[in-house]
Amino acid sequence: MLSKNQLKNITSLHFKKHREEKKLFIVEGEKVVDELCQSMYEIDSIYAVKSWIETHFDYLNKYTIVEISESELKKISLMPSPNKVLAIVKQKSHVIKTDLFEEDLSIYLDDIRDPGNLGTIIRLAHWFGIKQIICSPSTVETFNPKVVQSTMGSIFHVPVVRIELKDILDQTSKCLNVFGAFLEGENIYTKKYFNSGILVIGNESNGISKSNFSYIKEKISIPSNDNNHSESLNASMALGIIVSEYFRRKKFIG
Amino acid sequence: MLSKNQLKNITSLHFKKHREEKKLFIVEGEKVVDELCQSMYEIDSIYAVKSWIETHFDYLNKYTIVEISESELKKISLMPSPNKVLAIVKQKSHVIKTDLFEEDLSIYLDDIRDPGNLGTIIRLAHWFGIKQIICSPSTVETFNPKVVQSTMGSIFHVPVVRIELKDILDQTSKCLNVFGAFLEGENIYTKKYFNSGILVIGNESNGISKSNFSYIKEKISIPSNDNNHSESLNASMALGIIVSEYFRRKKFIG
Repeated sequence: MLSKNQLKNITSLHFKKHREEKKLFIVEGEKVVDELCQSMYEIDSIYAVKSWIETHFDYLNKYTIVEISESELKKISLMPSPNKVLAIVKQKSHVIKTDLFEEDLSIYLDDIRDPGNLGTIIRLAHWFGIKQIICSPSTVETFNPKVVQSTMGSIFHVPVVRIELKDILDQTSKCLNVFGAFLEGENIYTKKYFNSGILVIGNESNGISKSNFSYIKEKISIPSNDNNHSESLNASMALGIIVSEYFRRKKFIG
Repeated sequence: MLSKNQLKNITSLHFKKHREEKKLFIVEGEKVVDELCQSMYEIDSIYAVKSWIETHFDYLNKYTIVEISESELKKISLMPSPNKVLAIVKQKSHVIKTDLFEEDLSIYLDDIRDPGNLGTIIRLAHWFGIKQIICSPSTVETFNPKVVQSTMGSIFHVPVVRIELKDILDQTSKCLNVFGAFLEGENIYTKKYFNSGILVIGNESNGISKSNFSYIKEKISIPSNDNNHSESLNASMALGIIVSEYFRRKKFIG
């Protein structure tokens, strides 16, 4: 049974302002909550229907679990078809690891706005073992519920930090490789050197922001079949293809 | 000015049933309508606000154009922020080209349900010069407005056909390569032979359907960093990465 106060507190987290104020966020559904429970994230409380609780008895001692009805779940859920359980989770903040730039590729997202894109990128980074994602302050909020759900649990495994590109470069060596994905640039498939540094991906409509242009050391590009660049690939798709090529070389080329 | 009848006819096309009955579909927004006008698709009529018409005078002799107000556009549009113009377009049906299987890779979508995924896949296919996309009959409708808009115009350039995998194989040689994307399979980066045939991608939740298993000749897979396949990549992302690797080999490896 959900109290008025609980209802109010949970639904307030549907809004960015309150998520940021309370440093909490919402995680929903059986699969993603299972991933959450196996992660290092700290759970504030779990709201679940009877059938979920019956299959998760071992969690009763570990977490604050409130049994609710299906109709109560509908009231607090953000999903079109709520799925048994909703958890309130403490936000985690990560610090940037500049030492990674020397041996690994970090991803820099310059003003990515679509929550589905950020979610897909976090999932992709988890798959290929990218150790950190860095977002421009204007990039969509990491703990936006659509981002969280579309990561399918990968959000609990990949550190996401938020900082201006400029401020990273102030803290690091001048030899740092900064690759930018552009419509025109060096072919990623034939490019010689591509094994560590920062890969910058720009906004869905406008690409990399002008204020970041001067920090890009090498422009790279995914060639198209007819070299007709009137069209473009979706931002997360382009990133996926570039990261795949990085991964192939790192793991499978002598 | 929009008549009652026009309003009714256009909004009926928001629904699959009427789109299929009338063999028409909706295309919206400046950019995608511009792509449409340069394509081989036949336009039934265009509904546009004054400012669009003023910059497209040369279309007045070519198409049936109805000037409407912003508020009328809102009534007929399916977009959250309608963008100046909406076109009603005749559906085009394509026939499968089996001769392509010998020299190129065709994509087979086995029960892809998300319109955004199908749209992204059509856009990707256009980029990499994939010459046909084949959909299982259960795959989301090609002319679904969300599919159309998310292709960003690529739908006018890539033929999409709809047929059971079984029925294709009945019509073709037994030596046809049929690759299936699985969580476990031959590593796409180190696999030796991968240059023509059909690449099958399965449903977002359930993968390739059991009824198609027996037609797959080679299972292929995108390796993950830690070989932990509890997670997976999004269906369109996985397809993008595999097609990129196919393209790299075809174009850039001797």
